[in-house]
Amino acid sequence: MYRSHTCGELRLADLKKEVTLSGWVQTVRKFGSITFVDIRDRYGITQLLFSEALNADLDANPLGREFVLQVKGIVNERSNKNPNLPTGAIEIAVAQFTILNKSAVPPFSIQDDTDGGDELRMKYRFLDLRRNIVKKNLELRYAVGRSTRNYLHENNFMDIETPFLIKSTPEGARDFVVPSRMNAGQFYALPQSPQTFKQLLMVSGFDRYYQIVKCFRDEDLRADRQPEFTQIDCEMSFVEQEDILNMFEGLVKRIFKDVKNIDYTDVLERMTWEDAMWTYGNDKPDTRFEIKIANLKFPRHTFPTQSSLATLIEGAAFGVFDDAETVLAIAVPGCSDYTRKQTDELTDWVKRPQIGMKGLVFIKCNEDGTYKSSVDKFYSPEKLKRIADAASAKAGDLVLILAGAEEKTRKATSDLRMYMAERLGLRRADDFKLLWVLDFPLFEYAEEDNRWVARHHPFTSPKPDHIDIMINNNPVIANAADYLAHPYAGIKANAYDMVLNGNEIGGGSIRIFQRALQEKMFAALGMDEEEQQHKFGFLLGAFEYGAPPHGGLAFGFDRLCAIIGGSESIRDFIAFPKNNSGRDVMLDAPSTIDNKQFEELQIKLDLK
Amino acid sequence: MYRSHTCGELRLADLKKEVTLSGWVQTVRKFGSITFVDIRDRYGITQLLFSEALNADLDANPLGREFVLQVKGIVNERSNKNPNLPTGAIEIAVAQFTILNKSAVPPFSIQDDTDGGDELRMKYRFLDLRRNIVKKNLELRYAVGRSTRNYLHENNFMDIETPFLIKSTPEGARDFVVPSRMNAGQFYALPQSPQTFKQLLMVSGFDRYYQIVKCFRDEDLRADRQPEFTQIDCEMSFVEQEDILNMFEGLVKRIFKDVKNIDYTDVLERMTWEDAMWTYGNDKPDTRFEIKIANLKFPRHTFPTQSSLATLIEGAAFGVFDDAETVLAIAVPGCSDYTRKQTDELTDWVKRPQIGMKGLVFIKCNEDGTYKSSVDKFYSPEKLKRIADAASAKAGDLVLILAGAEEKTRKATSDLRMYMAERLGLRRADDFKLLWVLDFPLFEYAEEDNRWVARHHPFTSPKPDHIDIMINNNPVIANAADYLAHPYAGIKANAYDMVLNGNEIGGGSIRIFQRALQEKMFAALGMDEEEQQHKFGFLLGAFEYGAPPHGGLAFGFDRLCAIIGGSESIRDFIAFPKNNSGRDVMLDAPSTIDNKQFEELQIKLDLK
Repeated sequence: MYRSHTCGELRLADLKKEVTLSGWVQTVRKFGSITFVDIRDRYGITQLLFSEALNADLDANPLGREFVLQVKGIVNERSNKNPNLPTGAIEIAVAQFTILNKSAVPPFSIQDDTDGGDELRMKYRFLDLRRNIVKKNLELRYAVGRSTRNYLHENNFMDIETPFLIKSTPEGARDFVVPSRMNAGQFYALPQSPQTFKQLLMVSGFDRYYQIVKCFRDEDLRADRQPEFTQIDCEMSFVEQEDILNMFEGLVKRIFKDVKNIDYTDVLERMTWEDAMWTYGNDKPDTRFEIKIANLKFPRHTFPTQSSLATLIEGAAFGVFDDAETVLAIAVPGCSDYTRKQTDELTDWVKRPQIGMKGLVFIKCNEDGTYKSSVDKFYSPEKLKRIADAASAKAGDLVLILAGAEEKTRKATSDLRMYMAERLGLRRADDFKLLWVLDFPLFEYAEEDNRWVARHHPFTSPKPDHIDIMINNNPVIANAADYLAHPYAGIKANAYDMVLNGNEIGGGSIRIFQRALQEKMFAALGMDEEEQQHKFGFLLGAFEYGAPPHGGLAFGFDRLCAIIGGSESIRDFIAFPKNNSGRDVMLDAPSTIDNKQFEELQIKLDLK
Repeated sequence: MYRSHTCGELRLADLKKEVTLSGWVQTVRKFGSITFVDIRDRYGITQLLFSEALNADLDANPLGREFVLQVKGIVNERSNKNPNLPTGAIEIAVAQFTILNKSAVPPFSIQDDTDGGDELRMKYRFLDLRRNIVKKNLELRYAVGRSTRNYLHENNFMDIETPFLIKSTPEGARDFVVPSRMNAGQFYALPQSPQTFKQLLMVSGFDRYYQIVKCFRDEDLRADRQPEFTQIDCEMSFVEQEDILNMFEGLVKRIFKDVKNIDYTDVLERMTWEDAMWTYGNDKPDTRFEIKIANLKFPRHTFPTQSSLATLIEGAAFGVFDDAETVLAIAVPGCSDYTRKQTDELTDWVKRPQIGMKGLVFIKCNEDGTYKSSVDKFYSPEKLKRIADAASAKAGDLVLILAGAEEKTRKATSDLRMYMAERLGLRRADDFKLLWVLDFPLFEYAEEDNRWVARHHPFTSPKPDHIDIMINNNPVIANAADYLAHPYAGIKANAYDMVLNGNEIGGGSIRIFQRALQEKMFAALGMDEEEQQHKFGFLLGAFEYGAPPHGGLAFGFDRLCAIIGGSESIRDFIAFPKNNSGRDVMLDAPSTIDNKQFEELQIKLDLK
């Protein structure tokens, strides 16, 4: 028996017990003839006292950091208690010790603020995982998973495993493929998601399915993406959008309660995609802070139901605004006293290549009711006030205005909004704001091919009253320049995203469940009948045998955990992540394979 | 809202309620002017009554089998109650119905004893899954998983996900590989198990890890194998074999309680590998029945601690026994009255190519105390009695004796034992007998390479008192003919298998946790230092930084579920299984991929 107790377990109630502990040497401190050692395991840290009698043993078997140690001894009360440690009232008077394994000096220190750089910590991930801060992340991940499983179980969902070796049907992202030895010349694909399988399970009548499951996408990686990632994947039969929103609002609230002990009692705000884009400049708004975008000029008909405020700014002979396609403003609270240096900083910030704007216009809404602007010579104080009012500015605010091409300006304004919130400390990691974004467009326009692509995926249903528009119109875009006039541009999807603190944490849709509509969708995406049959014949076939109405969603498990853990980096919440080149630097994978493997798989390299 | 209740929910207590149900049409029965429809969903079946008033609607919208139907109506008491159905006391007087989706006539009937063949059911797996018997299998699988998670959670295990895109280190089975686009010319491998990762997690101090996880092996498939399969994968730190046996004995008992409501209170029998091989002819004995093998002649030193009974049978001028390397006997209860036809049948059975024996000797132990044998002319009744006694035969038993080369004869006798038990109905699917098999040999001899291979895997530790034998001897086998005399042949592993009803359902070991011993193991398997470093450098490195003593095991989840479900076929317990060629006949995968995919991956086919 290696231990009678863990290193986090002993208390004053255990005084005088004879115990055996095993763990890692955290610190060794020698005071005269006695030695204190902190021993650590997953459960905590306990102080060990080696008396003078053990000095000869210690000299013969010196202890080092991260050595694996077993001790037998008696639980004593500490004279110098540590109230910050659950075991801080006791220590073990060591009678006997065994070094179970030695340790070389770790390449970085095993503590919260380590001296290890990213690559070094990835290479020695098994040591990085010893750090309390990283361990806590994985514990949180386990708690989120456990909470999810309990909630879904209580709501009659069944965990059903779907296959990993499936068929390659690239649509959108690239598949990872797996050569088949038994079927030479053919390949499996790893699933980008279990989408079609969960729909088949609904056709099978399983009614409520879930899985916490690995998915794979062979994309060029950004900092917050991984080639393999985990989804909480769910599907329900006989549901409308409202049923799904309620069910999964409940799930996330349950997770907050179980994992963070937060009672998230607010009903989640629901926002249309159009409102999100119009008011926040993107479809996953961070609503922890109030700043909204005022649309001073917005000529294009992306948002046909919205009206522009262009009359406020036009005709003042200010060419930047007059010539711009779009002019957008935000009111930043309490920044009217920004100095020239500070406003110059902001101007430099928007001019950086990542943002790419030509300049920044500001209006200071002074506390005394006066206005001071970088465009004073074009706009009267009266006009500046009306612009500031349009941006909902209050006394003390700083209005920031960007002008330029529509998409770029909207993105820049959205980024500036986030940047200012960050500067002002409005994006607090321990503040959580959830919302639903609804009514996405069903299609996006792919300029290079002059055709439609599915904004969500090809299995998403149009809104019920838009189904006829889809069925009754030809998807072909006759006039590329005016694609927005095509009836398909206005079709809204029966789709929904859940947004947390400016991140899309989950998304889904009510699915198409009738063969004819699914075929129309595939055709709209440019798939002819043969391709439909080759790629999705099994699903079209299944829809012939009594497919029920169904819908679902998937949460990005890695990201959900990261945000709940107060981090923006998913990598910190994955036990063995890959770097931005898709490499596991610890394993040194991917790597070359043997000639025998090539021969058996009947493939060879074709390097360019 | 598609439904107010499920189809399994309504009872007499719900009388007169107005309800909405959705589900599939199971049957339509017309009686004069009224029509009865059974509507089915995951939760049950409810009887619907369509009165005469709906006949015009039904004529306009006729219902067929597997149509998806929504009805509104009133809960009424049935005059003709069905006590076998939880909803059998009520029926719904339908006021209004909607056909949500139609169904073509299914290619086989959706009922327990279907008329669909295997391939047809695999192709239409989404319909096969509608059958109650298959649905129950997946429900059982979910229950086993849920029970497992709860038990392990209560015992401080953490579910930690390990990566799927790892490094190819084929040792034993073949890896599935995945070409990397971002690292051209290099490949990931899919994990055969998370073995090294769970060991790294122990080095990281996670102490107790588990995962219910997909694993992949590219092997030629037998009927009960799948290229992707699921393991319950576990690892613990600071444990000895005894700790692991107790923990996982507890897990399986918990599963039996939760899933089958069986109180499996017996302490699991523990049997050494040697005893299992000696007494049952294989290392996963089915101990639901008592028949044991008597070793009448066993010359080789595979089992040095056992003694042979050869004097009983030799020297009687019966060449078959005199010339045989091995002679083994079993006593089959109550079969002494087998007719000539029946014993001939058994002789034919052992002569089949799959068994491959030359013949079968029998001794009938008649109820009257006399003996009748096929070798009467070589053995006196006295001698026959002694042989029968050696086989533990009682009056009324039939002793069956096989002779031949050691391995073949042992396997044949083991198979015959199982076959007789099957014939006699001794292998009851609802009877469960668990045991541990312990003390496996650490190594097996690979004749083609004249070297050792790891019987379990290269991370398994020798028994503590065998470590020195391993360290202090050269693994090279100088004399191939006498490999059993090599010290390594006698090294026993710190390994254990759990056996249920003649199937290995789980296995594991205490691991090597010291670099020097691990290097010695790799060297014993013929890996030079460079290969060790290339394949397992990360693990050897990890062992330098304070690796704790650890061990674990993995259960074959698919098989465990199948046996608990009373089946020998794992395929029935997998939602979307592959056939024996590794194909998903529903998806038609694997399949060809696009030229664009080949180009991006920089590989091409090299078909022979």
